[in-house]
Amino acid sequence: MQLVAEPIDIGTRSPTVILNESDAAELGVHALERIQLRHDDRTTIGIVELTDELVSEGTLGVTRRLGHIEGTIDVSVAPQPNSVYYIRKKLNDIELERHELGRIVRDIYEERLADVELGAYVSATYTNGLSMEETLHLTECMADVGESITWDESIIADKHSIGGVAGNRVTPILVPIVAAAGLKIPKTSSRAVTSAAGTADTMEVLCDVEFSVEEIRDIVGETGGCLVWGGAVNLSPVDDRIIRAETPLSIDPRGQLIASVLSKKKSAGSTHVVVDIPYGEGAKVESLAEARELAEDFNRVGSHLGMAVECAITNGVAPVGRGVGPVLEAREVLATLAGGGPNDLRVKAIRLADLLFESAGVDADAAEILDSGTARETFREILAAQNGDPDVVATDLVPGRHTHTARADRDGVITHINNRLVNEIARRAGAPRDPAAGIELHHRTGEMAAEGESLFTIHAESPDKLADAVDLTERVEMVRVRHPDEALVDRV
Amino acid sequence: MQLVAEPIDIGTRSPTVILNESDAAELGVHALERIQLRHDDRTTIGIVELTDELVSEGTLGVTRRLGHIEGTIDVSVAPQPNSVYYIRKKLNDIELERHELGRIVRDIYEERLADVELGAYVSATYTNGLSMEETLHLTECMADVGESITWDESIIADKHSIGGVAGNRVTPILVPIVAAAGLKIPKTSSRAVTSAAGTADTMEVLCDVEFSVEEIRDIVGETGGCLVWGGAVNLSPVDDRIIRAETPLSIDPRGQLIASVLSKKKSAGSTHVVVDIPYGEGAKVESLAEARELAEDFNRVGSHLGMAVECAITNGVAPVGRGVGPVLEAREVLATLAGGGPNDLRVKAIRLADLLFESAGVDADAAEILDSGTARETFREILAAQNGDPDVVATDLVPGRHTHTARADRDGVITHINNRLVNEIARRAGAPRDPAAGIELHHRTGEMAAEGESLFTIHAESPDKLADAVDLTERVEMVRVRHPDEALVDRV
Repeated sequence: MQLVAEPIDIGTRSPTVILNESDAAELGVHALERIQLRHDDRTTIGIVELTDELVSEGTLGVTRRLGHIEGTIDVSVAPQPNSVYYIRKKLNDIELERHELGRIVRDIYEERLADVELGAYVSATYTNGLSMEETLHLTECMADVGESITWDESIIADKHSIGGVAGNRVTPILVPIVAAAGLKIPKTSSRAVTSAAGTADTMEVLCDVEFSVEEIRDIVGETGGCLVWGGAVNLSPVDDRIIRAETPLSIDPRGQLIASVLSKKKSAGSTHVVVDIPYGEGAKVESLAEARELAEDFNRVGSHLGMAVECAITNGVAPVGRGVGPVLEAREVLATLAGGGPNDLRVKAIRLADLLFESAGVDADAAEILDSGTARETFREILAAQNGDPDVVATDLVPGRHTHTARADRDGVITHINNRLVNEIARRAGAPRDPAAGIELHHRTGEMAAEGESLFTIHAESPDKLADAVDLTERVEMVRVRHPDEALVDRV
Repeated sequence: MQLVAEPIDIGTRSPTVILNESDAAELGVHALERIQLRHDDRTTIGIVELTDELVSEGTLGVTRRLGHIEGTIDVSVAPQPNSVYYIRKKLNDIELERHELGRIVRDIYEERLADVELGAYVSATYTNGLSMEETLHLTECMADVGESITWDESIIADKHSIGGVAGNRVTPILVPIVAAAGLKIPKTSSRAVTSAAGTADTMEVLCDVEFSVEEIRDIVGETGGCLVWGGAVNLSPVDDRIIRAETPLSIDPRGQLIASVLSKKKSAGSTHVVVDIPYGEGAKVESLAEARELAEDFNRVGSHLGMAVECAITNGVAPVGRGVGPVLEAREVLATLAGGGPNDLRVKAIRLADLLFESAGVDADAAEILDSGTARETFREILAAQNGDPDVVATDLVPGRHTHTARADRDGVITHINNRLVNEIARRAGAPRDPAAGIELHHRTGEMAAEGESLFTIHAESPDKLADAVDLTERVEMVRVRHPDEALVDRV
């Protein structure tokens, strides 16, 4: 069927085309089915939505995601992508071959899969699992699509945290420590998806974070490291789409997690990677045994791919640092690099950096580099290279002026600080979009608090969002205070 | 956040709302996430798509599916529906409680689930299965939503085929036989989804098929039966949405199949149901053992619900009848009711009707009712009640005038006729949208064919579609002809 393609300004996550209902009936397609558009010797797949009037008969509305397609084109029903057959195979719990995983990755990359199919893919890998062989193949296939960076150096350091812990802004401290020791560490980070701040959100308080591959090479060449947003470089386009399907379901299949992390590291050209695996109640990984298994799998897949992957199994039950939210976290990063800052953040950054040094066979001491001010100097260079103010100090950063302080309702011990609730309350207060919004924790797990003593302060940029955050705070127990006798039997 | 709602003419399968990107960022929602709209004391859930220009800042584009919402409304991020938690539970292979299945059914009914989640639901029930208990609860929950019909009679007969066989137009023959015996049989049927014709498509050649529940009562009151399209009455709205998710994945979990069929029968007020289970190579059910298990499950769930469900396990390897496509099938229905028609179609209709009689304890003989012309008379009454021409005869119906006849390329035996290919080629020829398009089979499995003898004829309403169908025919082996020696070892 011939239709006249016309651009239409709708931004969707899938390559939507809008068809008049009578053309759709003529073609024999329903909403959400696929059609193929042949134009300029290329074939593009579109996912159908229907209209009565918005697009008239004989016209095809082409949304933004499909790029520029105009004029008379040939439209037909698209065949079902092969990968749907392989997804069904995995639902039947049959191990997938390398080429089958490659086809799935390719079809996700080219956005040939409808959401229903993507939901089935993540469900299948979650419920039936991925073998070591499959994980390895999936990682390689995911690394093969999108951009990649190559380096002349034989050692390229990198770091990843599987997440789930509020605060935990270790990366901006670790990167300058490692770079100051003479290693290259081109670190790409994410923005927050469900948390109050990602490393990219925190760094954006201090400097630019969106750079091209070429710019990243220059910054790293100049300073040894960088702290940029991974989303601006197309290192793992498939990962973003898989995460989009996992997020609403709150599932994160282990094999998929390993493939996502290591394919990104492979594309970034990393050779030595340290992975932070926080574990414990409320963390992504609940038990030590599970954390150890995951660490072993990371290790094995990494070594198959020629990467040295070391895992640090860390405490994931409570936030790391005292500030949660872009400005509050940036302030602690600056304080820690200046020799102060919360002790747990400092110790964790040093420990992970030392693990990287050990793995790469580099004779360096992270604590010494941090205490001598060399890491701080390197961080200033990175800030300057990323168009930030190298002279910024912690006190320059001001958290949101609308505040509410929560107080202990009894004398007792802080037995638990709920990571998930910290993130949720900070998000209600406006983080990460309002960078000055967030939470300041005044006590840590294990400390004593007297009745009426302040437990934490919520900061917001607007009174409405503060009220929203306070409202949730009053209905849940973000910080658990128990009488010392009770605390002994309380489950932490 | 307050936005001004404005209708926008886009028809989608989900309740899409179109947000300006800056409003979405302010709200903190991404494409495909849910927002809730509060208006006139009601709360409606919308699934977000983004735009730069189509909808300006401060405005919310409301697509057709959401109904009429206009003026200033309060918009906020919608909480995740509880059913997502239960879907994840099922992915973890934990049996679901009745109220959990009820929540899933309710959320599907209210279109609160995104496609990714719907994909996960059908994947979970497919890969981990549904227990007898779960199937029973699911059936009841599905029957509870949408419309239902009640009858004064103590016996309401019904029939269903799980499908997959081309031709197979048993229903329009069985319904008048059963009605002529004095039973009420209010039969609702589907249109073709992936086949060349559904019973509703075939009946539409002869009369109207879209009626309300009240009209159905009148037709059945008058004639004893009806042959209408189920989609026009809202008996199982959830089923349609589940099928939409299963179709692209080509999965049809057994428990879900039973729940879909029996919830619809329950809503229709049926008390005695005969289910046709075709089995064999290429059918939905491949082995006799599997067919028997399915029959037993149908039986058990039916009796829990107070319905007598009898299953007929039939041959599903080849088409039933000789014509495939609305006009060709309608012609055979008329011929069979007039005492002729293909023998397999006649025998199957008689067998299924007798099974219903036996199950309902009715002393009647289907062959006698058919041969005496009583069934034909009842069929004429149904046609008249459904605004058709009661005097129509088989020769009034003319298949598509553009034809192509395929011939045997050797002397041999017809060892196989591929149902899936028959449907696919008939669809390419234009069926079911072009009612006169379809395939006429000149030989049946087991018959001899000489080289050059005609095997089947494709009918189309347009030369283009005929060419399309012929093109596929030449690349595949729809009818398998083998030398008698070969045929002995050929797998049928």
